[in-house]
Amino acid sequence: TQGLTVIAGPCQLESLDHAQMIAGTLSEACAAAGAQFVFKGSYDKANRTSLSGKRGLGMEAGLKVLQAIKAMGLPVLTDFHEPAQAAEVASVVDVLQIPALLCRQTDLLLAAGATGAAVNVKKGQFLDPYGMANVAAKIASTGNDRILLTERGTTFGYNGLVADMRALPIMGRTGYPVIMDATHAVAFPGGLGDSSGGQREFAPVLARAAVSLGIAGVFLETHEDPDRAPSDGPNMIRLSDMPALIESLMAFDRLAKANPLHV
Amino acid sequence: TQGLTVIAGPCQLESLDHAQMIAGTLSEACAAAGAQFVFKGSYDKANRTSLSGKRGLGMEAGLKVLQAIKAMGLPVLTDFHEPAQAAEVASVVDVLQIPALLCRQTDLLLAAGATGAAVNVKKGQFLDPYGMANVAAKIASTGNDRILLTERGTTFGYNGLVADMRALPIMGRTGYPVIMDATHAVAFPGGLGDSSGGQREFAPVLARAAVSLGIAGVFLETHEDPDRAPSDGPNMIRLSDMPALIESLMAFDRLAKANPLHV
Amino acid sequence: TQGLTVIAGPCQLESLDHAQMIAGTLSEACAAAGAQFVFKGSYDKANRTSLSGKRGLGMEAGLKVLQAIKAMGLPVLTDFHEPAQAAEVASVVDVLQIPALLCRQTDLLLAAGATGAAVNVKKGQFLDPYGMANVAAKIASTGNDRILLTERGTTFGYNGLVADMRALPIMGRTGYPVIMDATHAVAFPGGLGDSSGGQREFAPVLARAAVSLGIAGVFLETHEDPDRAPSDGPNMIRLSDMPALIESLMAFDRLAKANPLHV
Amino acid sequence: TQGLTVIAGPCQLESLDHAQMIAGTLSEACAAAGAQFVFKGSYDKANRTSLSGKRGLGMEAGLKVLQAIKAMGLPVLTDFHEPAQAAEVASVVDVLQIPALLCRQTDLLLAAGATGAAVNVKKGQFLDPYGMANVAAKIASTGNDRILLTERGTTFGYNGLVADMRALPIMGRTGYPVIMDATHAVAFPGGLGDSSGGQREFAPVLARAAVSLGIAGVFLETHEDPDRAPSDGPNMIRLSDMPALIESLMAFDRLAKANPLHV
Repeated sequence: TQGLTVIAGPCQLESLDHAQMIAGTLSEACAAAGAQFVFKGSYDKANRTSLSGKRGLGMEAGLKVLQAIKAMGLPVLTDFHEPAQAAEVASVVDVLQIPALLCRQTDLLLAAGATGAAVNVKKGQFLDPYGMANVAAKIASTGNDRILLTERGTTFGYNGLVADMRALPIMGRTGYPVIMDATHAVAFPGGLGDSSGGQREFAPVLARAAVSLGIAGVFLETHEDPDRAPSDGPNMIRLSDMPALIESLMAFDRLAKANPLHV
Repeated sequence: TQGLTVIAGPCQLESLDHAQMIAGTLSEACAAAGAQFVFKGSYDKANRTSLSGKRGLGMEAGLKVLQAIKAMGLPVLTDFHEPAQAAEVASVVDVLQIPALLCRQTDLLLAAGATGAAVNVKKGQFLDPYGMANVAAKIASTGNDRILLTERGTTFGYNGLVADMRALPIMGRTGYPVIMDATHAVAFPGGLGDSSGGQREFAPVLARAAVSLGIAGVFLETHEDPDRAPSDGPNMIRLSDMPALIESLMAFDRLAKANPLHV
Repeated sequence: TQGLTVIAGPCQLESLDHAQMIAGTLSEACAAAGAQFVFKGSYDKANRTSLSGKRGLGMEAGLKVLQAIKAMGLPVLTDFHEPAQAAEVASVVDVLQIPALLCRQTDLLLAAGATGAAVNVKKGQFLDPYGMANVAAKIASTGNDRILLTERGTTFGYNGLVADMRALPIMGRTGYPVIMDATHAVAFPGGLGDSSGGQREFAPVLARAAVSLGIAGVFLETHEDPDRAPSDGPNMIRLSDMPALIESLMAFDRLAKANPLHV
Repeated sequence: TQGLTVIAGPCQLESLDHAQMIAGTLSEACAAAGAQFVFKGSYDKANRTSLSGKRGLGMEAGLKVLQAIKAMGLPVLTDFHEPAQAAEVASVVDVLQIPALLCRQTDLLLAAGATGAAVNVKKGQFLDPYGMANVAAKIASTGNDRILLTERGTTFGYNGLVADMRALPIMGRTGYPVIMDATHAVAFPGGLGDSSGGQREFAPVLARAAVSLGIAGVFLETHEDPDRAPSDGPNMIRLSDMPALIESLMAFDRLAKANPLHV
């Protein structure tokens, strides 16, 4: 079994400098802790709570930034939103990500699969974990089985999410690597009226609980000044807290993988 | 205040004959009961639970069927799934529908609004009813305020939905007409493993409860033989039960509109 | 089929004068509207959110107040909390009520049944509506089948409840009369930290939706000045709003009972 | 910081021999692993799903069994259901337990506190974790601050529960030791119609996730043949699986306590 992969970066790409700064910090922290690192950044927030929320750099500018991060020797991941974008995005990134709300859009899944790139699907907030086998099968029907499945919380009342730890081994039964998105899972969707609220202090709690189960990776959004981030600030982890967090997660990962659960 | 609108039809368009038969039956029933009728039919089920589920006629063939229903003098509604489809679909239909899972996709909402057609947005299973004001504002930003907002249930545990009657007056505060989708709200999403289950016997319950609150319309999927329908059979109403249901809903509509709630 | 019963009164009994004033107002309103009236008042709030909340008059003083209301020719209902209280309470009241959180306590149900009084059980916030058949069977095992089953909302995330209209006909399948508690169902349990919040403006919404389904009765808490009530103020209906509400509910009741649902 | 406490035993006490057998096995396993052990057994299942479910030995016989386990040098815990039972039960047991459904019954909490025994309160399935501060304050008002707070899952749709890992550090902010009940949290309440279902295979998942957060203890029900247990069989852990589970939990406990979370 492999060591933990850390998929991390800002919620949205802001600029080349900003992305390089974050990628550099995270890359060093992962190297120091023995984690594999994948840089994450979005070029378009296509489903903001409100129209007043910033959408980001756009595909062209965003892919240039991701290309530059790749040139640092780092694998990169981004999300996309329409089937027609798949090929162009996959020409740059290592991992295409399917947003949670779109996880059942058949054409998007097929387009992602057809690129041959790895595909990370976020489990919809409306979906039970057993349902991800059907989602993965849509991608696998293209002959591409480089699939990752990510938990990011399930709708729990209004403006609430809950992360069910059972979902991780249930999704693991598909045989695909399972990732815990610990920062989106602590969001309060729409909780601030025009944007989402969140409890960033609990992201390390969910990350550790999940890693202790022996999962493949953890997904964390981070910012040097979360309260000024253009999106998802309330649930992002402060960049300066990431090295210690990654180091402690690696300790739990080693123990978990030495003590596999049989579920 | 206007009388109740009934948006109804099969889950997916199956053939011209089938659509005409259903449209004819429903049109007569609505005329007899004094309800306004809008025919509903999907040309593509773009987010089936599993890849093995039938997707439907496709856009080209589906729009031909809808054109023929229009030629019967009936307004028609269909859902679409990508911004690029909006204009072509709007060249045929009276009402463009935004699927629940896509209700926060900004580009889809803007594309719908830009056609100038009426736009019916299903509230996402993951969204609180107050959040629909932000959704409507995205459409209204195009200068199109012919917007309808539809309740179709909120995620309630795994494979469950619950229809909160408070959502109807809450969405009504936007000033836009509010619709109750009483058949999707009784589905058990993914509950049969490869497809959704449902409790069609409770669709009239939710429809009546909602209509008693004085809403603008009710959305009902129907089939002459629901157990053999290509999708959503478990929660569709038998076509032969529709006339009596519509007639009784009209009685509650009249009473409700004579006794408006002030919320 | 019988006309609607209105079970109503303050959340907690405050004094004889206060109870008589409320009973008188409600009794007149029900008589004018043609509804059957049952006065409701609690002598002990045994499970307040916090120790600082007022518990009430206590059993002895409370039963005296209820006795006086009975002397006005009105049937009375109160809740009790321990098996040993059943007989004494039943010596005064017409209907013993089992609190929602206690609805599975076997000894309490058996003690209530053994008195021979009518027993109204609130469905627990943690219970599915099908489970109420097991609850009723515990009472019926005593030979007492004067049982009423009340919906008052189901846990929906943290500090939230949702009233599922399907629960009413599901509970109705037991053959016992079904009641909608429309004021507790709009509470936010614990939502104010030391006490519950609520949205009293939606109580008439839930009441009307439920009554339109043809249920036996509606349960409403009321106060002449809800914002100063010792408990449950945020979700109680202003006493001066009750006559018009009862009158409109009766209109929906008549229509519902002329158009029975077959579920 | 102290090492992990394991509170474990059968759901209900069946006989002296049975209790001694289980206590002996668990005591050895805990000693071998370095865990502190508290024996758990119920003398009365006072809120079975249905009247047909076995209630148990009763208080008198049950306390004799617990006395015998105590004579083995082991601390014992049991739950009680009415204030009047508190003193007698506390004359035998080390820890009085408040059942989840009764966690807001003020008199029960006060009676437990007044005994001076340690009091373990299960968080209600209907309660948010912040609300447990109010619950603990009721007990502490008696001058007894030997309080433990236990997570056992929150209502999640019908017949479902979900264990929110955030609840553990939230309850920990009270300063009282926090316990994870990993077997009740995998139950499906009422899921089998006349009794609860469950997924015992996920109890070790929730136990490990919780222990990795550095909690005080874990609560586990166990049986040598869970499928024949008189209650809660579907979610109990096989006794023969307990030693390895406890040993692995201790490894996570040591790592967690060497890496405290700061929430």
